[in-house]
Amino acid sequence: MVRWEPGATDRLRVAALELYVEQGFEQTTVGEIANSVGLTERTFFRHFADKKEVLFDGQDQLRQAFVDGIAAAPPSTPLGLVATALTQVAEYFTEDRRTWSRKRHQVIQANQPLKERELLKLAGLATAVTEALRKRGIKDPAATLAAETCVTVFSIAFVQWIADGETRSLAEVARDTLSEFRILALETAEP
Amino acid sequence: MVRWEPGATDRLRVAALELYVEQGFEQTTVGEIANSVGLTERTFFRHFADKKEVLFDGQDQLRQAFVDGIAAAPPSTPLGLVATALTQVAEYFTEDRRTWSRKRHQVIQANQPLKERELLKLAGLATAVTEALRKRGIKDPAATLAAETCVTVFSIAFVQWIADGETRSLAEVARDTLSEFRILALETAEP
Repeated sequence: MVRWEPGATDRLRVAALELYVEQGFEQTTVGEIANSVGLTERTFFRHFADKKEVLFDGQDQLRQAFVDGIAAAPPSTPLGLVATALTQVAEYFTEDRRTWSRKRHQVIQANQPLKERELLKLAGLATAVTEALRKRGIKDPAATLAAETCVTVFSIAFVQWIADGETRSLAEVARDTLSEFRILALETAEP
Repeated sequence: MVRWEPGATDRLRVAALELYVEQGFEQTTVGEIANSVGLTERTFFRHFADKKEVLFDGQDQLRQAFVDGIAAAPPSTPLGLVATALTQVAEYFTEDRRTWSRKRHQVIQANQPLKERELLKLAGLATAVTEALRKRGIKDPAATLAAETCVTVFSIAFVQWIADGETRSLAEVARDTLSEFRILALETAEP
């Protein structure tokens, strides 16, 4: 019989991130994470496949949120659909997640394999958004271009959202980033 | 004394790609590649660090070509600089490289670790282009947005360039893709 510890996933997640920030991702063992919240290594592995998984277990939800956002958006241009999905996804990133997200980003940026994993996650996200846009009848290359723009805007907005002193919500930052992007494209249209 | 075989790099490159296409990347050994052109495994390793390197040894040149293209472009908007660099880089991809590029792409798409390596290469390219744009005085987020757009347009144009039946040059496809991209952004500006 497997014993289930209520709230263990969250406790492990918080403890792991604190240790990664304090002593580095490489230097932290699963045993330390588990012990720091009075749990065993065995328990850790019932919640997460490995040390990395603590940082990436929201990956599927994020992708699904974008796919659902595109699917449910009212009829619009490709970037109009993207704008709706971005706003909707940004709502998952509430104020109380900002500090967690900042620390997570800091840990990832300090470690090359984690940075690569994050890049691959974003590439997977772009592929999923492309598919979702195609299902809305958007043809290529518009679907791919709009999906890549979606992920670029999301990534840039995210980094800005967790920057020191930033007070706008992620939805606001994403909207402003998308505007910057439009300005950029319009400038090019000039001779 | 190390003996230098003239043209060995190219012979090994062509032989390796043929074998990767015929029997798969995983299934091909360095020994087979070398032997198929009458060379030894030792010789192979004087030219390439490993089997993957055959497919990725143009990576630094590509990045440098983009960086040089941005640096040398006449004053323009961020995407104007990108457009100049794209056209310049596209010139490296002459007609006689189209078949090689198509086969290379086919091998990479069939193998997950190679796909990941290619994605990381493109991410590194975006970072280099961002830096080059900053050196031209472009601020963020415009520099990052324009750099990501550059890499997205290049990737999409490249895949189109090697598609069956495509006859336009890479420079033409890149220009058309950038236009599609502008249309996409303009559409969004509409209510």
